Amino acid sequence: MDKEQNILKKYFIPLAKNKESFHLKNDGAFLQNEKLVISTDMMVEDQHFTRDYNPDVVARKLLRINLSDIAAMGANPYGCLLNLALPKKNIDKWLGKFVLGLKKDMEKFKVKLFGGDLSFSSKIFLNATILGKTKKLIHTKNVTRYDSDIYVSGNIGDAPLGFEIKKNTNKFKCSEKTKKVLINKFYFPEPRLEIGRKLLGKVEFCTDLSDGLFRDLKIIAAESRKQANIFLEKIPLSYQAKEILDGNKKEEIWETILSGGEDYELLFSYNKNNQRRKNISNTTKIGFFSKGKGLKFFDYNGNEFLLKNKGFYHF
Amino acid sequence: MDKEQNILKKYFIPLAKNKESFHLKNDGAFLQNEKLVISTDMMVEDQHFTRDYNPDVVARKLLRINLSDIAAMGANPYGCLLNLALPKKNIDKWLGKFVLGLKKDMEKFKVKLFGGDLSFSSKIFLNATILGKTKKLIHTKNVTRYDSDIYVSGNIGDAPLGFEIKKNTNKFKCSEKTKKVLINKFYFPEPRLEIGRKLLGKVEFCTDLSDGLFRDLKIIAAESRKQANIFLEKIPLSYQAKEILDGNKKEEIWETILSGGEDYELLFSYNKNNQRRKNISNTTKIGFFSKGKGLKFFDYNGNEFLLKNKGFYHF
Repeated sequence: MDKEQNILKKYFIPLAKNKESFHLKNDGAFLQNEKLVISTDMMVEDQHFTRDYNPDVVARKLLRINLSDIAAMGANPYGCLLNLALPKKNIDKWLGKFVLGLKKDMEKFKVKLFGGDLSFSSKIFLNATILGKTKKLIHTKNVTRYDSDIYVSGNIGDAPLGFEIKKNTNKFKCSEKTKKVLINKFYFPEPRLEIGRKLLGKVEFCTDLSDGLFRDLKIIAAESRKQANIFLEKIPLSYQAKEILDGNKKEEIWETILSGGEDYELLFSYNKNNQRRKNISNTTKIGFFSKGKGLKFFDYNGNEFLLKNKGFYHF
Repeated sequence: MDKEQNILKKYFIPLAKNKESFHLKNDGAFLQNEKLVISTDMMVEDQHFTRDYNPDVVARKLLRINLSDIAAMGANPYGCLLNLALPKKNIDKWLGKFVLGLKKDMEKFKVKLFGGDLSFSSKIFLNATILGKTKKLIHTKNVTRYDSDIYVSGNIGDAPLGFEIKKNTNKFKCSEKTKKVLINKFYFPEPRLEIGRKLLGKVEFCTDLSDGLFRDLKIIAAESRKQANIFLEKIPLSYQAKEILDGNKKEEIWETILSGGEDYELLFSYNKNNQRRKNISNTTKIGFFSKGKGLKFFDYNGNEFLLKNKGFYHF
């Protein structure tokens, strides 16, 4: 268990003994009577972004990572509240770009601005709280009870590869076009709202991959007292990720793909006997749960692939 | 109009064209169908508190300033989400005290913890988003249309006097007991939940005094196209504030009382002809609106009292 999980367990889960919060083990809270879900995520300068980022990117990413929680619960975007602590200097220029980006994605995803708070700070601190509307049902990320099949949406690894390229443009051998595409995947995660809604009532759990496949799946396996078995050859990769795998040291690239965060794809499981399973486009089976514990990756030869780096940590 | 108001007007009000947000001119948003109000406030290190504050104080103040918005709308506390960006060093000791304080006030005010987000940061950033339950009706801080009477709850000025004493213990001549009482008023504002609820349906507007009587009332007078007339002799003062007024330079003390922030008392207005007006304990008439514009204070001799300092600004 990592430090963030330890802090949650030690300090905050004991304070959250209410059914709405799912004991803080879900992507967000569910207010059943009001048919709302609510979640919050923050972005801190030098932790999630640096001052050289285009404020348009920062605004849209802030909204999208929050929308990803709404997608993971199968809800529809409703509205958000924003907290911005900003430096006094050059604030107008920064805010102008930030608000343009925000407007673009608020319209795209049909999110209303409900309120917020402004303050001064030498470092930029941003936070959004987002509300989603639901019917009676939402996804939870609780547990799997069976030896279910494990699925993801979209492609895995683009955002962490893009993040590495953003930090060091010569990190990998690849085309300039590929660099640009991957950095954009890191900048603009796609909240899987439609897929999240389509999966309602069909899957055992659903969550978004914010901290990397390794870390997010490991927590679920531990909660479920199951072993998660994942096959690298089944993991959906973009054309660009494949180009990088082909032209660089494979073990290092897989390390980044599996343990890097911020893909914001959905991770979910189908009971093998589920008659309601449908072929939903842009989703892929990558493995299954079995008796045992922990998370095991298997390479193209069926050998266990061991990670050195163990996922994205905020602490 | 100050810088924070300018930023709101220029960048954010154009994004908040929805009925729920009241165009960001209210203490919080009102989700009418769901019968919920929602609001958010943050506390930033070196802006709202310093590292030497007891984390118990920080936690309880964070919750209370958010609850004050719920009180100002006449709602009942429901639940909250917390965002904490914290330094890595000595985090356990700080969090232990923070969570104890939080628990105390979550129980006192019956607030559930619904969720949140944790991150690392060299400076402490804290934010809470709070939800309140309502019936059909809430208060808004919009405007007064008539030459109504202006009221406040509790006493005015204790928190800003306490804040000055906290910064410089020898700032005013007064007893050590008085210093302690006023600093505690600054640390632990009392969200006026019961008064807020009792006023529902009886007053024209209601808001909480977060930025000081001068600034908060000036904004309402401007929005209402009225002149607000306030009489210093009517302003309710604590025993401790009176002691400081008596033993120090009166003009300076009144300056702090009127323009200092963080009292978190309610400010509201009764139509003079309102038949439903009731004598609600711990509320006091301090003046009235009239034709004209701006905000005028009158001293004990009926002369206008002019402020040098114009309220609490985050920017």
